[in-house]
Amino acid sequence: MLLTTLYIIAITAEAMTGALSAGRRHMDWFGVALIAVVTALGGGSVRDVLLGNYPLTWVKHPEYLVLCIVAAMLTIVIAPLMKHFKSLFLVLDAVGLVAFTLIGCKVAISLGHGVVIASVCGVITGVFGGIIRDTLCNDVPLVFQRELYASVALVTAVAYLAGRQLGVGESQMVLLALFAGFLFRLLAMRNHWEMPKFIYQDDVH
Amino acid sequence: MLLTTLYIIAITAEAMTGALSAGRRHMDWFGVALIAVVTALGGGSVRDVLLGNYPLTWVKHPEYLVLCIVAAMLTIVIAPLMKHFKSLFLVLDAVGLVAFTLIGCKVAISLGHGVVIASVCGVITGVFGGIIRDTLCNDVPLVFQRELYASVALVTAVAYLAGRQLGVGESQMVLLALFAGFLFRLLAMRNHWEMPKFIYQDDVH
Amino acid sequence: MLLTTLYIIAITAEAMTGALSAGRRHMDWFGVALIAVVTALGGGSVRDVLLGNYPLTWVKHPEYLVLCIVAAMLTIVIAPLMKHFKSLFLVLDAVGLVAFTLIGCKVAISLGHGVVIASVCGVITGVFGGIIRDTLCNDVPLVFQRELYASVALVTAVAYLAGRQLGVGESQMVLLALFAGFLFRLLAMRNHWEMPKFIYQDDVH
Repeated sequence: MLLTTLYIIAITAEAMTGALSAGRRHMDWFGVALIAVVTALGGGSVRDVLLGNYPLTWVKHPEYLVLCIVAAMLTIVIAPLMKHFKSLFLVLDAVGLVAFTLIGCKVAISLGHGVVIASVCGVITGVFGGIIRDTLCNDVPLVFQRELYASVALVTAVAYLAGRQLGVGESQMVLLALFAGFLFRLLAMRNHWEMPKFIYQDDVH
Repeated sequence: MLLTTLYIIAITAEAMTGALSAGRRHMDWFGVALIAVVTALGGGSVRDVLLGNYPLTWVKHPEYLVLCIVAAMLTIVIAPLMKHFKSLFLVLDAVGLVAFTLIGCKVAISLGHGVVIASVCGVITGVFGGIIRDTLCNDVPLVFQRELYASVALVTAVAYLAGRQLGVGESQMVLLALFAGFLFRLLAMRNHWEMPKFIYQDDVH
Repeated sequence: MLLTTLYIIAITAEAMTGALSAGRRHMDWFGVALIAVVTALGGGSVRDVLLGNYPLTWVKHPEYLVLCIVAAMLTIVIAPLMKHFKSLFLVLDAVGLVAFTLIGCKVAISLGHGVVIASVCGVITGVFGGIIRDTLCNDVPLVFQRELYASVALVTAVAYLAGRQLGVGESQMVLLALFAGFLFRLLAMRNHWEMPKFIYQDDVH
């Protein structure tokens, strides 16, 4: 219930950040809608296709798809105001990252997969929307180059799965992991925590 | 029957435009064949993977795959002549866009999906081949930046689905939607109709 | 048995080359792990998703996924030494290409597909990991622009499938195709054999 509410908030926020990315690339309205949808629903779709878990969420609930498209069109209208809401969007994006991750873990577990696949599904659900967005916009995906993001997904997933193993009640553990992951992401942004980078140069031209 | 004929014409034409794209990037013959195949068959494959609709068309009918590869190799041979056929290819591409879209709608409906998913499947089938082609060639997909293209797919899909709801006979409605979509695309090219673009600049570096 | 051993060697080597690619793009450790996993396991995953062949190998055997991640992290540690092992990696990569291709053929055949789809599955398994790697790193895929690579996969697949049709025993044919494909790739690298390129220029701006 809580996760569904957060999911709906999160796909709306992600669709709007996707629309802004498309706007930075001067795409037309169709491109804006597509990038918005892919950013919001792409992570879960990649997860379900890799697991063979049909029907996909948005195929079963086309209303989520419609919501993302409406959010994208709204973004075009209110774009001039968006710069005042930058912090709000970063917060909503953090909520989305953590909620997506937990949903991904729960889907994998409900299909009978073990903890390795469950964490991977959590991370995929959390970050793959942004990766496809950046690939379609022809950028090197941001998630590989900025403040802790995928790591937040991984830590959230591992915390949740560890708590479950230790016998913490399901709903307490969801709340705890949500809160911990969210706080971790906010701290990472505030303090510009970054993962170490791997810099490799060879003499191949 | 008509749709199958148009489908075969369309995948041939799309394979040839894919081959030309690969040639512009100086790819080798393998790259040319791959880009051709992906351009022609990619839209339908993405649709079927998202719907879990197995086997994919070209897995069931490998002859379509062979046709695309032959068309790609032929394009290499006759490339010096291709500039004389530019208008023909734009026309065939328009036929393909509309035929692919209708086939996508029909597949979704035959699987029991509603009108939202059916229109989305129509648009995906119509335009995704070109999107994957441009992503593999490392361009921002053209479909997001030029004359009405995806919009033609959407209008065609909506017209077809609306006609069905209103009780127009299946084959009449296919013909009508084919003709209307095709005309719309030709008019869009002739008059350089474009979708409005969303241009967003923020002060983030 | 032999193929499983070669598969494990191959995914380790491919994961390490993926990690080096990520390092050239200054990605963080998460990006390194992801590119490594995608390079090593992406070809087989694309094949299985296109065939609807679930569960994917790494979902059934998460230990392969863990192996790739460990190999990627190890690559970061020993990166300064990597330039001394360039030839070794090219050899391991050739082993991987040929082993992946044969595995792809065998999977398709075991699912009842014919020779066209089996060769296509061989080639996809052999080369798609590298294609996704280069797309995520925002390059035009190398496989389209350098020495014979996909062609080696195709020749290996066709040789194996032809031998089977001619009644050569399964294990002899695997050995033969492995050896022939491997030799072909080494010769192609040594002599800089390349596929002809298709170079197309038109006057469209």
